[in-house]
Amino acid sequence: MGHLAENRYGKSRVRLMKVVRHAAHDKMPAVHEMKEWNVRLLLQGDFGSCFTTGDNSKILPTDTMKNTVYSLARDSKANTSEQFAMELGQYLLDNNAQVSSVSVDIEEKKWEHVLVDGMPHPTTYSLNGTELQTVAVEKNRGGEFQIISGIDGLVVLKTTDSEFTGYIKDKLTTLPETTDRIFATRATIVWGLARQPAEFTALRTTVRDRVLTTFANHHSLSVQHTIHDVGEAVLKAVPDISWIKMTMPNLHCLPVNLAPFGQDNPNMIFVPTDEPSGYIEATIRR
Amino acid sequence: MGHLAENRYGKSRVRLMKVVRHAAHDKMPAVHEMKEWNVRLLLQGDFGSCFTTGDNSKILPTDTMKNTVYSLARDSKANTSEQFAMELGQYLLDNNAQVSSVSVDIEEKKWEHVLVDGMPHPTTYSLNGTELQTVAVEKNRGGEFQIISGIDGLVVLKTTDSEFTGYIKDKLTTLPETTDRIFATRATIVWGLARQPAEFTALRTTVRDRVLTTFANHHSLSVQHTIHDVGEAVLKAVPDISWIKMTMPNLHCLPVNLAPFGQDNPNMIFVPTDEPSGYIEATIRR
Amino acid sequence: MGHLAENRYGKSRVRLMKVVRHAAHDKMPAVHEMKEWNVRLLLQGDFGSCFTTGDNSKILPTDTMKNTVYSLARDSKANTSEQFAMELGQYLLDNNAQVSSVSVDIEEKKWEHVLVDGMPHPTTYSLNGTELQTVAVEKNRGGEFQIISGIDGLVVLKTTDSEFTGYIKDKLTTLPETTDRIFATRATIVWGLARQPAEFTALRTTVRDRVLTTFANHHSLSVQHTIHDVGEAVLKAVPDISWIKMTMPNLHCLPVNLAPFGQDNPNMIFVPTDEPSGYIEATIRR
Amino acid sequence: MGHLAENRYGKSRVRLMKVVRHAAHDKMPAVHEMKEWNVRLLLQGDFGSCFTTGDNSKILPTDTMKNTVYSLARDSKANTSEQFAMELGQYLLDNNAQVSSVSVDIEEKKWEHVLVDGMPHPTTYSLNGTELQTVAVEKNRGGEFQIISGIDGLVVLKTTDSEFTGYIKDKLTTLPETTDRIFATRATIVWGLARQPAEFTALRTTVRDRVLTTFANHHSLSVQHTIHDVGEAVLKAVPDISWIKMTMPNLHCLPVNLAPFGQDNPNMIFVPTDEPSGYIEATIRR
Repeated sequence: MGHLAENRYGKSRVRLMKVVRHAAHDKMPAVHEMKEWNVRLLLQGDFGSCFTTGDNSKILPTDTMKNTVYSLARDSKANTSEQFAMELGQYLLDNNAQVSSVSVDIEEKKWEHVLVDGMPHPTTYSLNGTELQTVAVEKNRGGEFQIISGIDGLVVLKTTDSEFTGYIKDKLTTLPETTDRIFATRATIVWGLARQPAEFTALRTTVRDRVLTTFANHHSLSVQHTIHDVGEAVLKAVPDISWIKMTMPNLHCLPVNLAPFGQDNPNMIFVPTDEPSGYIEATIRR
Repeated sequence: MGHLAENRYGKSRVRLMKVVRHAAHDKMPAVHEMKEWNVRLLLQGDFGSCFTTGDNSKILPTDTMKNTVYSLARDSKANTSEQFAMELGQYLLDNNAQVSSVSVDIEEKKWEHVLVDGMPHPTTYSLNGTELQTVAVEKNRGGEFQIISGIDGLVVLKTTDSEFTGYIKDKLTTLPETTDRIFATRATIVWGLARQPAEFTALRTTVRDRVLTTFANHHSLSVQHTIHDVGEAVLKAVPDISWIKMTMPNLHCLPVNLAPFGQDNPNMIFVPTDEPSGYIEATIRR
Repeated sequence: MGHLAENRYGKSRVRLMKVVRHAAHDKMPAVHEMKEWNVRLLLQGDFGSCFTTGDNSKILPTDTMKNTVYSLARDSKANTSEQFAMELGQYLLDNNAQVSSVSVDIEEKKWEHVLVDGMPHPTTYSLNGTELQTVAVEKNRGGEFQIISGIDGLVVLKTTDSEFTGYIKDKLTTLPETTDRIFATRATIVWGLARQPAEFTALRTTVRDRVLTTFANHHSLSVQHTIHDVGEAVLKAVPDISWIKMTMPNLHCLPVNLAPFGQDNPNMIFVPTDEPSGYIEATIRR
Repeated sequence: MGHLAENRYGKSRVRLMKVVRHAAHDKMPAVHEMKEWNVRLLLQGDFGSCFTTGDNSKILPTDTMKNTVYSLARDSKANTSEQFAMELGQYLLDNNAQVSSVSVDIEEKKWEHVLVDGMPHPTTYSLNGTELQTVAVEKNRGGEFQIISGIDGLVVLKTTDSEFTGYIKDKLTTLPETTDRIFATRATIVWGLARQPAEFTALRTTVRDRVLTTFANHHSLSVQHTIHDVGEAVLKAVPDISWIKMTMPNLHCLPVNLAPFGQDNPNMIFVPTDEPSGYIEATIRR
C-alpha cells in the first residue's frame, strides 16, 4: 500500500550531570567544574525491516543509547558540549555498521558559581537564567561533522532606541507609528561553523557578547533591522562562523491607554503580553 | 560583511474564537458551533531593505496580520481550519505584491459539547484533551496550496500486545527483552493531501479513527512496527492522502523491582517516566 | 537565635501506574484496569533534632516513602485513590511512632478506554483531558481521616446564558455591561466528606455530573451566582458531602472590535486571553 | 440547602511594566529603571447577595481592579513591590466600603541591566533567572498591613559538603548512606516582617545574600539541617524579620551505576531527575 520513506530514531531527554573535581593546591581551594547537559541522539540507516516486519536485529535499543551517554561521559576528556557531541556521534557510527547518519543535540543549562563575599564559591552554583547553550552536530558516514552551536531563550529588552514607522498602511491597519517603543524578545540564535575553532567556549562567549552589545547599542528601526546588524557584528567578530540564524519573536509591551482615567502615559506604563507575538527570523551568511 | 539569506516574518499565537449561532427551529433548540483556533501567519518576499537599511515601506505590520485574521473570520464561510487557512493565505498574497510565499498554520482545540442527560448540550462545551487538530498550508505566488493536516498530542497507551525482543546486544546493553510491555506515546501525526478532499472534517475523523483502531488492535513488535502498520492503514482508508508522517516518542512505563521487598511484580506495578524518552519518527508514502 | 516552628517533609511526585489484568471468561475478552496516580506523602512529628543538630535517627528517608508507595500498591485491594491514600497514611502512622500526623495527596489522570467500532477496547487507553481527579487525606495520630476529594482543571465554556450587569461603576470603570457573554473557566473543585460513602467512584461521578449539568443549564448573572448554584446542586444530590469549594478563574473571551474595519461583531468573533484572569472562589456548606 | 461560607474574588495575572526615565545629567547617561510585575488582587466582604441572587450592586468588577493597577502605577511613587502592594490595598479599602479585607500579591521578574564592556547598559536588560521576587500583603479594615516578602524559584546546587546518614532503616529501605552527595533544590522562601524596614530592597538583598552564603558554606547533614541553619543566619542578620519559612524540594541527582560497563563512578556522573522529589518545609521563628 505504502512504502517506508524518511525515518530516524533515537533517545531524547537523556540528562547528564558531570562533576570534575580539581584537587586543592597551594592556597587554592578544590574547585569543582559541573555541567548539566540534556542530550538527544538520532540515527538513520538500514532499519527498514524493523518497520515492515518487526525484525529488530539491526536495532540498537534507545536504552543502550542512553547508557552510551553515561559510559562515554565517564572517560571523556571533552569539556565542551560540541566536543562531547562529536565523540558520541563518532562512537555510534564506529560501532554500528547499519547506521548511515547520526545527529547529536545537547542543551547546557546556565549554572554559574555563586558569589560569596564577591568571589565565586568553588563548589556552589545557582541557575542564572532559562537560557540554554545548544549544539547540534550531524555526520554522514564518510563525511565531516556539521556543527551548529547556539543559544536558546536569551530574553532581552531595550526601553528605548527602538522605532517602528514607515510601514504599509491599509484598511486593516490600526497600529500607530512610534519612534520610541519597548523592544523585548526571547531570542533563539544558531550559527554554523566553517571549521572547528581553537576554543569552542571562547567563540561562544564572543558571540554572546557581540549579540548583547549590538542589541544594546543599536538604534533599531525594526526587529528585522536589529537582527541584520547583530548578525553582521557577529560575523565580523568571529571568522570561524560561516552563517548565523536568529529568531526574535516580539514580546510585545503595549502602552496602556490611561486617557479614560484622565491621565497621560508618557511612555511609562505598559502591559507585557505573551500572545499574539510578532515572529521575525533571518539568516545572515558570510 | 555578510548578506541576508533566508528570512521570513509574521504573527504567531493569534487566538480566535468564533461562535456561529444557529436559530432554533421546529422543536430543535438553538445550537451554537464554537471553534477555538490559534493562528500563525508567515510571509516571505521582497523585504531585504527592511533588514539592511531599516526601510519599512514594504513591511505589512504583524499587527495588521493579526487584524486580518479577525476581519476575515467575521465574513468567512470556512468551517474547517484548512479552508480558513487557505482563505487567509490567498488574501495576503492578493493584497501584498511584495510577498512571494505565504504559510498559515492553525491549531484547533478539542472542545466538545457537554453531555447532559446523555445528550450534547447545544451551547455548553468542555475541553476533552490536550490534543490539537493542526493544519499547515503554504503557497508560492503562482503555485498551488500545499496542505498538511495533522493531530498533535494524541496520548495513547496499550497495556498489552507490545513486545521488544531480538535487538542488538553489545557491551553497553542492560535492557532485558520483553514479550509484554506497556506501550504509551504522545503521538504527533501529519499527512499530506494529494488533492482537496470532499470534506476535510470527514477525512480527519477517518484518519483519527484508523490511527486509534490500528494502534489498539496491533500486536506490536516495536514502536517502528506499529508506526508502519498505522501508516499503512491510514493510506489504505483515505485515498486523498499521499503520505503520512508519525512521531511516537515512548512514554516509558518501567516495571518496578519489588524483589528487595520480597514481592513479585507480575507486570502490575510501573513507574511512568517523562525522561529519557525514546524517539521514533517515520514517513510512509503511497 | 530562632526556634523551629511548623515543619513537615515527605516525597512528592511519586508516579505510579497499576494494571489489574482480569482474565477472559465466557465470551468476554480479558479486560485490563489501568490507573495512573501521582502521590505526595507528608509527615509531621518529632523531627526537631534533625533540623537543629543533623541527627537523622528519627528520619524515615523520603526514598523509603517512595518505596512504600510501590510496595503497598502491589498488594493493595484499594481501587480508588481515596482508599489507597488512607491505606498509605495508616501504614506510615502504624510503622513510625515519631510521626504525629500524616497527609497523602493523589492525583489521577483521565485515562479512558479507546472506542473501537463504538466499543471500549479492553486494553487500550487514551488520555481525554488535562483534568485530574484529586484526593487529599489527613490523619492525626488517634484521630479520624479527613477526606477531601476533588477535580482539578475542569475546562468548560458556555456560549450563552451568561450576563454581567448592575455592578459598581466608578471613575476607573471601562467594562461595558453585557447580557450575553461567553463564560469559560478552568474550574478547581474540592469537597469534604462527612463520612465514607458506599462508593467513592459513584459519588465522584455524581458530583462531576451535577457540576456539568448545572453549569450547562444555569442562567448565570455572574460567576459568583453560578458557583453558588452549582454548589447547591451538588449538596442536594450527594448527602455524604458536607461542603464544596469551587475556584472558577475566568478564561476571558473578549469580543473583537471590528468597527475600524467597517464590520459589526454580532457576538461572533472573540479573542480568548489567559491573562489577566478573573478569580472567584467560594465554599458552600451544608 | 447550603449556605455561603468563605469566599473571595479578584483579578490575577495583571501584568505591569513600568519604566522610570531618569534624565541624563553631567556626564551620566539617561538611566531607565524598569520593573515587570505580575499582580493579584483579592477582596473579601459583603458579597453574599451576588452569590445567592445574582445581585451585583456591591461588586467591583475585576476588570476595574485591573484598571486600578495601571492607573495607580502611573502616579505612584512606590519603587518596591511591597510599597505598591500596600498602596493598591489601601486604595481598594478606602474606595469600597463593602470590602472587609484585601490581599495583594506581586511577583517581580529578575531583569538586570546588561553588561556592555563591563558596565551596566543604562537602558538594556536581560532576564537573569526564573527566580521571582515576591510579596503578599493583607489588611483587614481597621487593622495593620501584614507583609510577607519572599523569593520563589531560587535554584541552587552544592557539589559537595552534603551528607545523609544515620536515618531509619526498615524493610522498605533501599537508599544507601552517603557522606558526599549533590544537594540541589529549587527553594521557595518567604519571611514575615515585624515592622516596615527602612529599605525593603536592602533588606531583600541581605536575605538573599545570607541564604546563598549560608547554603554555600554549610556542611549539610540533611536538607532539614541546612534549612534550619539558613533560617538562623537570616534571622541573625535581619532584625526586622520575625519568621522565615523555607521549602526546599530535593532536585535529586543520582549517581549512575557504571559497573555493568566495567567502569567505576567516583562521584562524577549523575542523572538529574525531576520526579520523584523530596519535599522539606520548615518555619524558623525568632
